[in-house]
Amino acid sequence: MDEYVVEKAIQDIYPDDFAWCYGCGRLNKDGHHIRTGWQGEQTVTFFEPHSKYMGIPGFLYGGAIASLIDCHGTGSASLALHRKNGNEIGDGSVPPRFVTASLNVEFLKPTPQHVTLKAVGTVEEIHPKRWKVATEVYAEETLCARGTVDLVVMPSTFQKQND
Amino acid sequence: MDEYVVEKAIQDIYPDDFAWCYGCGRLNKDGHHIRTGWQGEQTVTFFEPHSKYMGIPGFLYGGAIASLIDCHGTGSASLALHRKNGNEIGDGSVPPRFVTASLNVEFLKPTPQHVTLKAVGTVEEIHPKRWKVATEVYAEETLCARGTVDLVVMPSTFQKQND
Repeated sequence: MDEYVVEKAIQDIYPDDFAWCYGCGRLNKDGHHIRTGWQGEQTVTFFEPHSKYMGIPGFLYGGAIASLIDCHGTGSASLALHRKNGNEIGDGSVPPRFVTASLNVEFLKPTPQHVTLKAVGTVEEIHPKRWKVATEVYAEETLCARGTVDLVVMPSTFQKQND
Repeated sequence: MDEYVVEKAIQDIYPDDFAWCYGCGRLNKDGHHIRTGWQGEQTVTFFEPHSKYMGIPGFLYGGAIASLIDCHGTGSASLALHRKNGNEIGDGSVPPRFVTASLNVEFLKPTPQHVTLKAVGTVEEIHPKRWKVATEVYAEETLCARGTVDLVVMPSTFQKQND
């Protein structure tokens, strides 16, 4: 794997109807296109946001960091439940989609722009339909932010509303 | 005050050097331009994000909700400390700027797009340089999300880095 590229990302195989998210949807032409894959037993996302997403010039704004932790979380839970179900990316199976119940972010240091950020996630199953992802966001060797996301398998009401 | 317009917003008088945030900077041509003002003893932000910020089609993505709660929080704390210091918007004084230490968001219901959201904040002073803002986000009468933000007065290191 190239140092800054996820080769097999779960977002690449989300069903088209659920691939429009500004954070992680491959079909959203304006969005961040966050892509999340396995790195050993952890999950990883690389992210170099456009310079317009500044907070103070030179530093990323908090909303982009929150979005990274959020979408990296939904992707990580999807990876983990897909694997638990006996599937892997590329075998033709459709992965489960999660929605975020709650998001917590600690901003530890100013996060520089123009650096590829690395989000590393640890996934925990709370029960089969509720998962938790703890994420650390690094700029090179510096831990800039960390967060946790509580996630639930997307309820069928969402899917019906989208029919 | 028009129902969906904040007439006097704290972000309108941030110093130019700190008015570039994608969430709330008036000088960031691409950003959300969040504007926060007083509504009685609470603070208020109205926000109708562009349709590109979808999560699932028809619903706002979580990162935009997090950004709203975050920047509404920094603005609310700035409003409150500015007033505590004896100043008001329009008297020519420069307001204090805050940075976010931590952000918590609960996503209670899917947040619709194409509706003007209303964020209502309650500001609490923890100590003179550390404040907390509790925010509720409504789509019409529906409480869609709520969150808290812990904020600190912007450290001088930030400002030196920006000289």
